[in-house]
Amino acid sequence: MKDLDPVSSFSAVRALLETMPGPDQPALSQWTQRDPQLTKPAGALGRLEEISRFLCAWQGRHPPRLDKVRARVYAGNHGVAALGVSAFPADVTVQMVKNFETGGAAINQLCRTFGIELAVEALDLERPTADFTKGPAMSEAECLAGLATGMRAAEDGVDLLVIGEMGIGNTAAAAAVCHGLFGGDPADWTGRGTGVDDHHLKIKIEVVGRGVAANRSDDPLEILRRLGGRELAAMAGAILGARHRRIPVLLDGYVCTAAAAVLHAADPRALDHCLVGHASVEPGHRRLLERLGKRALLDMDMRLGEASGAALAVGLVRAAAACHNGMATFAQAGVSDKD
Amino acid sequence: MKDLDPVSSFSAVRALLETMPGPDQPALSQWTQRDPQLTKPAGALGRLEEISRFLCAWQGRHPPRLDKVRARVYAGNHGVAALGVSAFPADVTVQMVKNFETGGAAINQLCRTFGIELAVEALDLERPTADFTKGPAMSEAECLAGLATGMRAAEDGVDLLVIGEMGIGNTAAAAAVCHGLFGGDPADWTGRGTGVDDHHLKIKIEVVGRGVAANRSDDPLEILRRLGGRELAAMAGAILGARHRRIPVLLDGYVCTAAAAVLHAADPRALDHCLVGHASVEPGHRRLLERLGKRALLDMDMRLGEASGAALAVGLVRAAAACHNGMATFAQAGVSDKD
Repeated sequence: MKDLDPVSSFSAVRALLETMPGPDQPALSQWTQRDPQLTKPAGALGRLEEISRFLCAWQGRHPPRLDKVRARVYAGNHGVAALGVSAFPADVTVQMVKNFETGGAAINQLCRTFGIELAVEALDLERPTADFTKGPAMSEAECLAGLATGMRAAEDGVDLLVIGEMGIGNTAAAAAVCHGLFGGDPADWTGRGTGVDDHHLKIKIEVVGRGVAANRSDDPLEILRRLGGRELAAMAGAILGARHRRIPVLLDGYVCTAAAAVLHAADPRALDHCLVGHASVEPGHRRLLERLGKRALLDMDMRLGEASGAALAVGLVRAAAACHNGMATFAQAGVSDKD
Repeated sequence: MKDLDPVSSFSAVRALLETMPGPDQPALSQWTQRDPQLTKPAGALGRLEEISRFLCAWQGRHPPRLDKVRARVYAGNHGVAALGVSAFPADVTVQMVKNFETGGAAINQLCRTFGIELAVEALDLERPTADFTKGPAMSEAECLAGLATGMRAAEDGVDLLVIGEMGIGNTAAAAAVCHGLFGGDPADWTGRGTGVDDHHLKIKIEVVGRGVAANRSDDPLEILRRLGGRELAAMAGAILGARHRRIPVLLDGYVCTAAAAVLHAADPRALDHCLVGHASVEPGHRRLLERLGKRALLDMDMRLGEASGAALAVGLVRAAAACHNGMATFAQAGVSDKD
């Protein structure tokens, strides 16, 4: 990846999409050999078994390891926030970044609970993206800068990358990206975000519809540039960078998965190294997960962002690795196998 | 509770059911005052908010505390195991108890992951319960001994009690208890347990049907005695004892919830201090949760028992308490609240 970093053009990003490594077959074989020997009926740990298998495949390592779990929360501001698409004022983005830095947000408590190292990157908050109802949200240079920021999160030595975002107005951007990628009706993709009322939901749907009408493209990266935001670009970059560094990724809710969907639209294999931490209350998220063929790990009626749903799922991932790595075999424990 | 311990008769158990404390209103008020001040949109943490509220209500304390989380796994053997209702031989119960004691089972890894103190109680494994197709599985004395064992788990100082079981043949006992309590068809309540094939599933359904036909009663405690087993009695005792000691409980899968259902049939408020850790693959579990009006926290396609699904949910409970207790308020963090 070194020769492509920093990504200097969308074609450099496309080249990274064309050279993504696949699952590691030797690690998968070792998993497949060990799992049936563990003291449990075959399959009885359900999705915990899928998760430990996934870790082997995408870490390229058996046994899987979770010594260094890193969370990255990217913050961005959005021109469309001025149009009344959020229940909170745009100032809240920078205020919440300070809250992350002083340890007072939900994500801080979750990272402490599950042994996750957290860092927050504020992406030019003083310069919101352009209002996408009037033209592209970002220039190619701005979008590439976001992608490059995300790629830097995928450092060697990270065992699992948890990604999320903060940005007043960004569920409108996510809705626009999804509507731009998948079509349908703007209302299909637009929800209440932080909790807008009926009147503002109508405005939000209308803004999303106008944004997509003003920014049509068949190129997923162009959709990201024209309708997304810096934090969406950073999350897409983190996912793609992690793939090349063999780091599995936990996705968060709607905005995060919308950023991921850009890569999926470019290559359907692009999210094979990603699990989705939770299904958000935001109705577009469930619709999007169906399109991506992903089943979320948790369904906790959450809609906070900040990587909170992904961080919560780290407990499940730790449990999966602990079971696969630490359980005794039938032979070791002197337990009779199935007749 | 002291004057009723050890429970000497079913009427003493009924007296405990009649004197169950309700939710703690002062602790609930404190929760209700603090939660809207935390730096998140109202409701954005979804079920994590419900969980921290639940902890306050049933610990009778604000803020909630999770210093001492205890798991108890009760093991029992079943006369019906000899009839071919399990894919594993009955010897596996005692072998798995040894595996728990030496730290090799899934539950050991899960307890280590989530900071849970584990103890296993083997309940007269050398004396399986009687074959319930021929009469009651237990005498009243045996059932009371099981209940009393469970009640001892609810010691002062425990902040959360996680309960589960091990017992070859005990999904047949659980199915019989549910069929006995709720009626319907034996096939509605009978699943593959550890993984029986079609032939043995047919046998299992037939055994469950014959058991219920031979042991009809309108008294839930009699259903527990006639169709359950020592580990089911112990789990019911643990739930009831925990209620009196103000200890919230995490229930595991089908067998555990079937034991809980006995109390619910006696008094529908009896499980208000319980959360269900996960929805098991066992189809009777989902049906049972509907009857109890409970929504499981996790849906991980698990079907292991051992308290594994409940232990996995401890991560969610810890996260919920950490968020409620540790997050900054809007005022503390200088974050603007909703317009």
